[in-house]
Amino acid sequence: MKIGFIGLGIMGAPMARNLAEAGYSLVVFNRTRERAEAFLSSLPQADVTVAATPAEVAATSDLVIIIVKDTEAVREVVLGEEGVLAGGRPGQVVVDMSTIAPAAEQEMAVRLQERGMTLLDAPVSGGDVGAKEGTLAIMVGGPESALRSILPVLQRMGKTITYCGPVGCGQLTKLCNQILVSVTLLGVSEAVAMARRCNLDAERMIEAVRGGAAGSWQLANLGPRILSKDFAPGFMVELMQKDLKLVLEAADQHGAVLPATSMVHQFFNAAENRGWGREGTQVLARVIAQLCNLE
Amino acid sequence: MKIGFIGLGIMGAPMARNLAEAGYSLVVFNRTRERAEAFLSSLPQADVTVAATPAEVAATSDLVIIIVKDTEAVREVVLGEEGVLAGGRPGQVVVDMSTIAPAAEQEMAVRLQERGMTLLDAPVSGGDVGAKEGTLAIMVGGPESALRSILPVLQRMGKTITYCGPVGCGQLTKLCNQILVSVTLLGVSEAVAMARRCNLDAERMIEAVRGGAAGSWQLANLGPRILSKDFAPGFMVELMQKDLKLVLEAADQHGAVLPATSMVHQFFNAAENRGWGREGTQVLARVIAQLCNLE
Repeated sequence: MKIGFIGLGIMGAPMARNLAEAGYSLVVFNRTRERAEAFLSSLPQADVTVAATPAEVAATSDLVIIIVKDTEAVREVVLGEEGVLAGGRPGQVVVDMSTIAPAAEQEMAVRLQERGMTLLDAPVSGGDVGAKEGTLAIMVGGPESALRSILPVLQRMGKTITYCGPVGCGQLTKLCNQILVSVTLLGVSEAVAMARRCNLDAERMIEAVRGGAAGSWQLANLGPRILSKDFAPGFMVELMQKDLKLVLEAADQHGAVLPATSMVHQFFNAAENRGWGREGTQVLARVIAQLCNLE
Repeated sequence: MKIGFIGLGIMGAPMARNLAEAGYSLVVFNRTRERAEAFLSSLPQADVTVAATPAEVAATSDLVIIIVKDTEAVREVVLGEEGVLAGGRPGQVVVDMSTIAPAAEQEMAVRLQERGMTLLDAPVSGGDVGAKEGTLAIMVGGPESALRSILPVLQRMGKTITYCGPVGCGQLTKLCNQILVSVTLLGVSEAVAMARRCNLDAERMIEAVRGGAAGSWQLANLGPRILSKDFAPGFMVELMQKDLKLVLEAADQHGAVLPATSMVHQFFNAAENRGWGREGTQVLARVIAQLCNLE
């Protein structure tokens, strides 16, 4: 099976590499062609070719995977003049693994369906480490039969692959994921700020509570980084902001009321104001610390 | 060793039972004497006696443990006319396992110290289930040597016993615990409301995300109860509100700024307005659901 792979960024490149190393033939496209050439030369043993357009990718592959920056980038790749739709054919499955607006996936699914093509939305979580190690969580929306047909491919990139419902539901699940991640992190930030204002040993505090009802991935993994003032990005503030904008946009469309998520978005705005957009999301704790006059 | 035990409520009774069953002699006191008598007759094999006052408990025991309702109740038990201070003697250790204001512990520690007595604050988390099973998390503040001297006793009641610092630090750690618990639960409530408004299968959503960066005890344990509309209390809203008041009071005293915790407290006020004060904290999700016009 020949896989078309569009987008060789910080997530896409290691994901495509895992497919190549599993023995799949790849035809790749990246808007900045140099990245595609660099990917090609990093895998001299593999069967990888570089295409000039997304249309060419679609025309020369059995399955097309897309992971690019945002809704507009996906639209251009799929619906653009030289896009996947222009080069694709009936029966072909397109998997969009970018995190974008759920409504956009639904619109594109309709356009692709008119040509007999099937769109799955399959955003991921787990960051670049998960991408490298092939341990991503993949949340899939679209026809379940299409998912079944490409499951072995997804299993090369992810560990937990969950079918979430019709097209768009993968994105909606990812948005719920980002609500949980960011509000939990705000709780961690406030608990650490409270501990520090009270002259409590914050490390002991985390140790004392992390095994119980207060426990979370955010506390266990980002708590210690906050304490050692390590703000290097696992996941960057500006990417979280992009996702939270999608969350709040979808909330407006669907009538969801999200007071805490909305508040987190505002505090990340404060982080961006301070020039911390490319820091890790745990820098949220620094915003709260400054409110507490802690630095 | 003879242990004095004051407070045989929903937490105290099973904790005292674990001590009796471990072979300790107990002298117990409860404001409503019937509860003490009932405790006594439920343990016919054990060496348990009932005292008429907290002073009598202190006078006839080596170590005094207190777990009562709130700051005022502890003050009365310790400093009241017939209190522990009046009956105690130099060298005696008093362990307050109630959740109360950290500043009150510090004040009482000074009063006890004037008589040569030592106060440890040692609030717990883990609920009545943890109390029954002896698996509580116990967060201890006060002189570390005093903790060492009574550690075997605490180990009969709890699994994780963490030394947190000088007196009051146990309470402060517990308050950080409640910040984490309640803000994380607000995130869970918003994610579930979002899923439901978007016609997403919320159960699948939780399944898809709980193993990753969005994961938490609250999501794993209360998420499913929220979905099945099971609002029976693990931990009651009105008790959480008592704790959140302590959190916000301590934040005011220490200059901590806690926007999300403050917001959660307000939403729990809404829950109490609806008559849900004796429901489990997960009823917070119902407050958010109503904002979303979901019921």
